[in-house]
Amino acid sequence: MVRAAVMPAPGEPIQVRDFETPELEPGGALLETYYSEVCGTDVHLHEGRLAGVPYPIVPGHLSVGRIVESNGQLTDVEGRTIAVGTDVTFLDVHETCNRCWHCLVAKATTRCPSRRVYGVTYSAEDGLLGGWAEQIYLKPGVQIVPLPEGVTPRLAIAGGCALPTAMHAIERAEIRLGDSVLVQGAGPVGLTVAALALLSGAGRVWVIDRHQSRLETAETLGIDEAIAIDDHQPANHVERLLELSAGRGADITIEATGSPAAIPEGIAMTRDGGRYAIVGHYTDAGEISLNPHLDINRKHLEIRGVWGSELRHLYRGIGVLARHGATLGGVGGWEQLISRTYSLYQTEQALDDVRHGRVVKAVIDPKIRDPST
Amino acid sequence: MVRAAVMPAPGEPIQVRDFETPELEPGGALLETYYSEVCGTDVHLHEGRLAGVPYPIVPGHLSVGRIVESNGQLTDVEGRTIAVGTDVTFLDVHETCNRCWHCLVAKATTRCPSRRVYGVTYSAEDGLLGGWAEQIYLKPGVQIVPLPEGVTPRLAIAGGCALPTAMHAIERAEIRLGDSVLVQGAGPVGLTVAALALLSGAGRVWVIDRHQSRLETAETLGIDEAIAIDDHQPANHVERLLELSAGRGADITIEATGSPAAIPEGIAMTRDGGRYAIVGHYTDAGEISLNPHLDINRKHLEIRGVWGSELRHLYRGIGVLARHGATLGGVGGWEQLISRTYSLYQTEQALDDVRHGRVVKAVIDPKIRDPST
Amino acid sequence: MVRAAVMPAPGEPIQVRDFETPELEPGGALLETYYSEVCGTDVHLHEGRLAGVPYPIVPGHLSVGRIVESNGQLTDVEGRTIAVGTDVTFLDVHETCNRCWHCLVAKATTRCPSRRVYGVTYSAEDGLLGGWAEQIYLKPGVQIVPLPEGVTPRLAIAGGCALPTAMHAIERAEIRLGDSVLVQGAGPVGLTVAALALLSGAGRVWVIDRHQSRLETAETLGIDEAIAIDDHQPANHVERLLELSAGRGADITIEATGSPAAIPEGIAMTRDGGRYAIVGHYTDAGEISLNPHLDINRKHLEIRGVWGSELRHLYRGIGVLARHGATLGGVGGWEQLISRTYSLYQTEQALDDVRHGRVVKAVIDPKIRDPST
Amino acid sequence: MVRAAVMPAPGEPIQVRDFETPELEPGGALLETYYSEVCGTDVHLHEGRLAGVPYPIVPGHLSVGRIVESNGQLTDVEGRTIAVGTDVTFLDVHETCNRCWHCLVAKATTRCPSRRVYGVTYSAEDGLLGGWAEQIYLKPGVQIVPLPEGVTPRLAIAGGCALPTAMHAIERAEIRLGDSVLVQGAGPVGLTVAALALLSGAGRVWVIDRHQSRLETAETLGIDEAIAIDDHQPANHVERLLELSAGRGADITIEATGSPAAIPEGIAMTRDGGRYAIVGHYTDAGEISLNPHLDINRKHLEIRGVWGSELRHLYRGIGVLARHGATLGGVGGWEQLISRTYSLYQTEQALDDVRHGRVVKAVIDPKIRDPST
Repeated sequence: MVRAAVMPAPGEPIQVRDFETPELEPGGALLETYYSEVCGTDVHLHEGRLAGVPYPIVPGHLSVGRIVESNGQLTDVEGRTIAVGTDVTFLDVHETCNRCWHCLVAKATTRCPSRRVYGVTYSAEDGLLGGWAEQIYLKPGVQIVPLPEGVTPRLAIAGGCALPTAMHAIERAEIRLGDSVLVQGAGPVGLTVAALALLSGAGRVWVIDRHQSRLETAETLGIDEAIAIDDHQPANHVERLLELSAGRGADITIEATGSPAAIPEGIAMTRDGGRYAIVGHYTDAGEISLNPHLDINRKHLEIRGVWGSELRHLYRGIGVLARHGATLGGVGGWEQLISRTYSLYQTEQALDDVRHGRVVKAVIDPKIRDPST
Repeated sequence: MVRAAVMPAPGEPIQVRDFETPELEPGGALLETYYSEVCGTDVHLHEGRLAGVPYPIVPGHLSVGRIVESNGQLTDVEGRTIAVGTDVTFLDVHETCNRCWHCLVAKATTRCPSRRVYGVTYSAEDGLLGGWAEQIYLKPGVQIVPLPEGVTPRLAIAGGCALPTAMHAIERAEIRLGDSVLVQGAGPVGLTVAALALLSGAGRVWVIDRHQSRLETAETLGIDEAIAIDDHQPANHVERLLELSAGRGADITIEATGSPAAIPEGIAMTRDGGRYAIVGHYTDAGEISLNPHLDINRKHLEIRGVWGSELRHLYRGIGVLARHGATLGGVGGWEQLISRTYSLYQTEQALDDVRHGRVVKAVIDPKIRDPST
Repeated sequence: MVRAAVMPAPGEPIQVRDFETPELEPGGALLETYYSEVCGTDVHLHEGRLAGVPYPIVPGHLSVGRIVESNGQLTDVEGRTIAVGTDVTFLDVHETCNRCWHCLVAKATTRCPSRRVYGVTYSAEDGLLGGWAEQIYLKPGVQIVPLPEGVTPRLAIAGGCALPTAMHAIERAEIRLGDSVLVQGAGPVGLTVAALALLSGAGRVWVIDRHQSRLETAETLGIDEAIAIDDHQPANHVERLLELSAGRGADITIEATGSPAAIPEGIAMTRDGGRYAIVGHYTDAGEISLNPHLDINRKHLEIRGVWGSELRHLYRGIGVLARHGATLGGVGGWEQLISRTYSLYQTEQALDDVRHGRVVKAVIDPKIRDPST
Repeated sequence: MVRAAVMPAPGEPIQVRDFETPELEPGGALLETYYSEVCGTDVHLHEGRLAGVPYPIVPGHLSVGRIVESNGQLTDVEGRTIAVGTDVTFLDVHETCNRCWHCLVAKATTRCPSRRVYGVTYSAEDGLLGGWAEQIYLKPGVQIVPLPEGVTPRLAIAGGCALPTAMHAIERAEIRLGDSVLVQGAGPVGLTVAALALLSGAGRVWVIDRHQSRLETAETLGIDEAIAIDDHQPANHVERLLELSAGRGADITIEATGSPAAIPEGIAMTRDGGRYAIVGHYTDAGEISLNPHLDINRKHLEIRGVWGSELRHLYRGIGVLARHGATLGGVGGWEQLISRTYSLYQTEQALDDVRHGRVVKAVIDPKIRDPST
């Protein structure tokens, strides 16, 4: 039997249930989970803010584990065999079809209608298709990425789902050597974006957030200045940013807050002719008010939405961890982004901690025993 | 003496005044005006909706005329001498400095703080620096474009200021062969954008407007469908567009309305992963409400503001007229965009006609005599 | 039984053989061939100039036909069902894997090592996998494109394999409204590139070739000037091109000759800071000599190879035919590019005519009866 | 009187001459030289390999000094006043016209025909317009860059003319986070390119050179592997590179050797669909032989020449020095690239050392007294 934490429906308590060990289709594999995580999307899933989710589900979309069984030979993107016993992660996005107009004509696979996501769009009744479980069933065709030398399972989960998301945001933001970059939000995505902006040659990197502890983490990354939002002086951080950027604003701003209010502010802090990437709005948090003349047309601004990620973002992201994971993120390396590790029985607590910003990254370790037994 | 129409202040009646024939600085030249025009910006100037305008002004930013005098040799961008007697137009934008951060580091000259614009940012007290006049003083450094073979003064003014603006919008929209293109608005800029989209290889071009007469003009351009806005059925045109575009929306949408309400609609009519260019908001017409999750992030949308124009837009635009001006725009060629020609004494009427959409393009001919004399 | 023309080995005579009617795998389909073609690649196949070809083969990579049978439901890229009886074409490129580094990380599927091509990389022993046959077996996964309204089978084969190749070249050349474009070579690819350059908004289009008849065809497309190569005055065409382009050369040059000598010449006819796309070298025709200082570095030139094509090139190309096929290519529309139609028994003649440039496009019609019976 | 080293003509000995202190035109300024340099271009000037050089000249194009006098107010690109006494460098490129087709239509100012370069295109008879002099005359319009905090004159000259050149090469190479980058050549430009590639987020950086000492310097930059060319085993470095890059070659290769033979090799070491930038061929060093089918077309390769530099390259390059100059380049920071400092009387020796690759960077310090006095 395999133990997993199940989200039965929005608002209902998480349940730990036992599942049958799955039988493997040809091309399928079984992963023994080292770590999964609790991210903002999981909070939104628990709040019922995503449409079309087939509850009950086993949450956990980005996970790390060890291949314990396979039905047929597995290979990675380089064509190398993945042996049983290998430590791996995998792309949570599955089943983009490579047949439809979005995949083939527009070449925008993140908008493929067949797209399925582990831990989000699969029902618990379909099996172990989420990471909050002792084992994960890798369906045939799941893109598996072996951890390269220097990337431990713990470092890989420190990257987590924020890593491919941030890789995509960075790709879309097109940072060039010397650009000044403002990152709005110092949660896992914002911090990862800031770290990757530094690695991409940004001339200066600033991070804005409301939480002092997150700003302190941001500073350990080596950014130029962490700017606090003072709710009593709501214009202060905008003024400070303009002061730091010759009155013009940042060359590139990347939004990673999920808060609608951040967007008009972010535009105001971006220079004329600059670029504004929006990656933090994975769920509907309401409307914003913009002035198309002042905020877009006259500003000659470019705004880019960033949706989903593809294998190359995960694959290259793991490569970044292999090269920089031990040094970036300051003294403790990238692993210091992990605030706390939870068992399958503590996922409610983890959801609550993420919801209230008490942790940066909440990791699930399914091997931690039930404290009650 | 040189006769010119002067806008003394917002809301005040236009006055016809006499000016001294200007003395030419070294490098300066004098243009006898064939035509100037009355565009939406002139209406906004008269309504006092632009900041920092040094009233009184001689309006008219895009004009066509004949060089009648020069102090020193004039050359065009190809290095060819421009003789006295040549028919020319010129870039209304003057004095971008080629010294500042915007010009040299960001390479965004349309945001250069030294930028001056004929007919907008010069006072009538500084001289004949607008097109509603029998003569125009070309300051040293003004970029003059001789009319090539096949481009009559009347064809050049049919292009008018909409032409470089639309060239810039098309450049920024990056249309590729086969893209479907939606144009919102069938005023001079929208019609020109539609015509240039067809020339750029768009697979289908649709135009949306409220005015039936403008839609009829759009249809003469050879577009695929002109879609009417029915105020009693405000969702109809959106539904029609989606029907025409496999339910996905256009690959590229270009806004040329100046109406804030057009923007959320335009986004709704653009496909996931598509591009949305905003060129119609040259003045502040108010705010819009957007949903950053649905409208930008999940849609993986790209939004691009388009501000001002540079010499290459005018220069290449005149080249487009030379090649296609006689055929595009249907039976009458591009000149059919000219709805009516006005004298210097009829500019109030012209402003009123443009304001109420009674004309597509209103042309000023300063040689038309005062009807009262 | 199904009749097909087989190329047994390089240099050996083509044989007409009978094949069993294939049995269809799930997802497979059978096409009754209207037309296939003989292109330069077929000549090279017959000369043994491609490596790794599994002779004997049934040549013919781009073909048009009618679905006569399917094993399971077929759908197109828009998700629409393709009924038996539909007229279609299909992408000759098959089996790019969507699993490898080239497909997923570099996103360069034309370099996928699993790529197979109908009429080139399949053996006749594997079945009816080429177009010189009364029927073609469409393997499961082959991307089928139904012919839209206005595209007859004859118009589709007039586009032929040159169409997706030229669409790719145009995409890679990034023509913008007003660019001057030089096309080297007036064979099927060169002529199609010239036509698509005109449709893409090129300001001027010039074509250079050695054969007078091809230049005449080029002129019917509406290009600006067809320039002849005079072997007795080998500098003449270069001088003429420079004369036409203000001494600077074309903004963009696209090579479609297959002749190495064309490349240094083409670079000499491209302006500083311009772009040079090479699409004509699908087989090894020898070396060229270049001067990296004069030809590339000081010239700030950009050179782009163009290899293969993907579904979007074929799909959008068929869309171009639907819109412009009847008018472009002058009086006869695009179909005038078809010089002659051959039966399966005349493919030797067709190969010879293509080899010696006696025809622009040589079409195979397998329904033409054996003249001897 | 001002002392300067003059190159009278190709092949003739350098002479130290005395010049009158220049009188300043309005807008002009006088620089007391801290440092200038001897680069490969100076060697080529001495060998007479550049066309149109108005010998005698005062060489030295990139220089650092202190403003000692100005005729009128000087400002930098940010609009800030540059006071007398400020330490500065300046863009050696002068007088791009901002009027011609290249400047305004193509937006390729490095190909402006009016372009003049300090130390290269000015004659000594025109005054102190090169850096091998105690003082340099800054003509009106010269773009002056004050040294920011943290950039000493010595660090600025350690960047030298290689810095803007390499910034331009990096811009043109479009490195994205995780790309593998091969740099051919470990002279000043190659080493700077390698350092900037690391800063731009390259996933791996390899450098190839013939000289062991240069490879050792490359290794101090933190690159992944310095690969030696072994003339007795001329295929070794190519094999090694392919081994390091999964048999595919580098994503991006940047040539900085000036040796024609490097180019076919560099292409062979670049992956299919990759990018190859050529920045090392500032003078004509002969022809290369390429196979357009194998090397460009089938490879779907992109080749980009990189000519000259603009203010933004120098300006942003100085910003990179301010941020990373003290740490990059290993223990000694960027200054360790300076191999030796020479007086005005030792420029022959410096030229000889550069010619034979005995030094990486040769700096001129005009304040070093004549050893004979």
